[in-house]
Amino acid sequence: MPDPIRLGIAGLGTVGAGLVKIVQDHAELLAARAGRRIEISAVSARSRGRDRGVDLSPYSWEDDPVVLARRADIDVFVELMGGEDGPAKASVEAAIAAGKHVVTANKAMLAIHGQAMAEAAEAAGVALRFEAAVAGGIPCVKTLTEGLAGNRMRRVMGVMNGTCNYILTRMESAHLPYDEVFEEANALGYLEADPTLDVGGIDAGHKLALLAAIAFGTRVDFAGVELEGIERISITDIEQARDMGYRIKLLGVAQMTGRGLEQRMSPCLVPAKSPLGQLENAMNMVVLEGDSVGQIVLRGAGAGEGPTASAVMGDVMDIARGYVLPVFGQPARTLESAPNARAAAPAPYYLRFSLMDKPGVLAKVATALGDAGVSINRMRQYGHADTAAPVLIVTHTTTPDALAHALKGVEATGVLTAAPVAIRIEEV
Amino acid sequence: MPDPIRLGIAGLGTVGAGLVKIVQDHAELLAARAGRRIEISAVSARSRGRDRGVDLSPYSWEDDPVVLARRADIDVFVELMGGEDGPAKASVEAAIAAGKHVVTANKAMLAIHGQAMAEAAEAAGVALRFEAAVAGGIPCVKTLTEGLAGNRMRRVMGVMNGTCNYILTRMESAHLPYDEVFEEANALGYLEADPTLDVGGIDAGHKLALLAAIAFGTRVDFAGVELEGIERISITDIEQARDMGYRIKLLGVAQMTGRGLEQRMSPCLVPAKSPLGQLENAMNMVVLEGDSVGQIVLRGAGAGEGPTASAVMGDVMDIARGYVLPVFGQPARTLESAPNARAAAPAPYYLRFSLMDKPGVLAKVATALGDAGVSINRMRQYGHADTAAPVLIVTHTTTPDALAHALKGVEATGVLTAAPVAIRIEEV
Repeated sequence: MPDPIRLGIAGLGTVGAGLVKIVQDHAELLAARAGRRIEISAVSARSRGRDRGVDLSPYSWEDDPVVLARRADIDVFVELMGGEDGPAKASVEAAIAAGKHVVTANKAMLAIHGQAMAEAAEAAGVALRFEAAVAGGIPCVKTLTEGLAGNRMRRVMGVMNGTCNYILTRMESAHLPYDEVFEEANALGYLEADPTLDVGGIDAGHKLALLAAIAFGTRVDFAGVELEGIERISITDIEQARDMGYRIKLLGVAQMTGRGLEQRMSPCLVPAKSPLGQLENAMNMVVLEGDSVGQIVLRGAGAGEGPTASAVMGDVMDIARGYVLPVFGQPARTLESAPNARAAAPAPYYLRFSLMDKPGVLAKVATALGDAGVSINRMRQYGHADTAAPVLIVTHTTTPDALAHALKGVEATGVLTAAPVAIRIEEV
Repeated sequence: MPDPIRLGIAGLGTVGAGLVKIVQDHAELLAARAGRRIEISAVSARSRGRDRGVDLSPYSWEDDPVVLARRADIDVFVELMGGEDGPAKASVEAAIAAGKHVVTANKAMLAIHGQAMAEAAEAAGVALRFEAAVAGGIPCVKTLTEGLAGNRMRRVMGVMNGTCNYILTRMESAHLPYDEVFEEANALGYLEADPTLDVGGIDAGHKLALLAAIAFGTRVDFAGVELEGIERISITDIEQARDMGYRIKLLGVAQMTGRGLEQRMSPCLVPAKSPLGQLENAMNMVVLEGDSVGQIVLRGAGAGEGPTASAVMGDVMDIARGYVLPVFGQPARTLESAPNARAAAPAPYYLRFSLMDKPGVLAKVATALGDAGVSINRMRQYGHADTAAPVLIVTHTTTPDALAHALKGVEATGVLTAAPVAIRIEEV
């Protein structure tokens, strides 16, 4: 049996502790599968004293993850600290420079620095793996990079932020408004310290940008992801969508178009009977569409100690088995800078307007939409008990540009009592 | 760039032709991803003259696949002929002996000869890959062997015969009896030449046996798969299941129990709202449950030119990228011979009895069940217009042994007009 492969783990939160548990509990199983033993040489975290429910006494301790990354007795540096810069970036760079393989769960860091890090790792001949950074336990990076490597990818989609999906499904099942469920989620510890990362779609946008790079052979372009969060989704929207046979999801879509790479992470109506529409609570789903394979759907837990540690361990096992491939599936220096497609393909939209309760307002809205070339498929208006009776409209297929133009026209009529809500209807 | 990797393809049906198309159409894309060109050196099939919609003129032709397998100008032998013995087996063995990597879609061959072939391939230091043999385009072999390599697997499940799933969903949606839909499927060319391979569960059983070997580190044991086909499922069963919130699927389940390895492929009732329950038409689904990752669900096309060729190509790409791992995820000689658990874990069952239409028959059935320790949760009886009024029973949780005993008791009463139907209710 070849020499053991030795890990240095930086970051001992739930995922780090989960990884230590797997290495300790499954030592024989992992050795049988990898053909060599998986060992931990050293660990690092902010606080040495904290009880993490695992015995760390067999391992060396480093206060500084950069020092850990350079230790002669590690082969793989596992970065589980998070943060797009700071110690995470410094230690990953140090590990690569020292010729160590790297496994990370850090989507924010890779979404920003992925290109430079991939070039450095490939120049050094080491692996830089990040399965755990995208959709937690779901091996979607591997599926896309390896299993579907014979396909020209057509589209990549995903519900990749469990917290947002929890909020949206909880709003529907408990008939509760956004703010209340947001507070619940916060109390349950589901939200990042900066909740905008979750509900603003940033975290999921990072993940989408990483998948898009692999799928389309392009440089990671997080800045090119059109981002919209779920903050403005109301219980009305959710219930109206349901009545029409849809569910609202924070959906990521990336596809290569004639105008360039389209990447967006935004609330969408998806058919309630589709796998995406049926995804509940904090689950994640990734949908991969290739020219040969058709549509592959992957579903699993998007976060949590076990699932995320499983993804990290999968990467470690590939490295232990000797598999080192380019970070994004083809050499980083060959990745192209695709133009940003900006506007998405045409689609029908769901619109909600809060209107002043006086005669003629509806006609003004309809006229403004028509003037912009946006035609109405269905319209509903509910009781006039309050002064902001919502009007709900489903348009025929229209371009995002025409829609934006139409919404400006509606706002210019001066009959709205709140900003309009427009949600794309995505055929998935 | 390293030397091209050169394929020899034996079998030019739809999948073989699909593979040739991918290699021809995506030459640059594949080269960018693999870091070397993918070329075809030679091909073989039964009939040289047939038009397969692809240009085969650039490639050498061999009438004998065994000769193809040994050619000096191929690195990877791709076996797409099928059949558990005969030319498929002979040529794969010849390829391994000649030091060639092998990619095959042949589940029947591997389910019977997988252990010996894996040992031979590993001794020769070549890859023997079979992603296309299990669930078509779904990269489930890769996910299980690599992505989830850090998990002790708890259970593997799957709907892995698209034809059976088509028949069952078509019976429900069109309200048609089994025989009629079977003929439809046959006319559409969905069935194997020997339809028992499909509707008898054999094909799906082969696939389950392969996944179980990887999941549990055991020798492939197709003989140990408890097989039951869908031939006795009636439209009554399907509609009753639906009314109770279930769907009937030909479901494979493999799990390691205290009594040994349990493997079964049989019709089951699964919750209609579960991903398995929602799977329609010819789609396949594989559910992988690991101790860390929880439940991962994979969904995609289980057959067809594109999806199957995609799976073959994924294997070829791994080999081209230099990844050779043990055939079943750990060295074949270390795979254990697990005892066959024989009976499955306890579960509730759905029962259908066709009874003589005379007084007291129902009491006799209930008594026979009770005598065997099988208790009734719900019972329904429909109109007595014909002489074979079906009685539908859902039992409380019971062991398969107790159930078998109970069914014998019911048959012994002499009140049945047809063999009883018993379908397990599986919590998925």
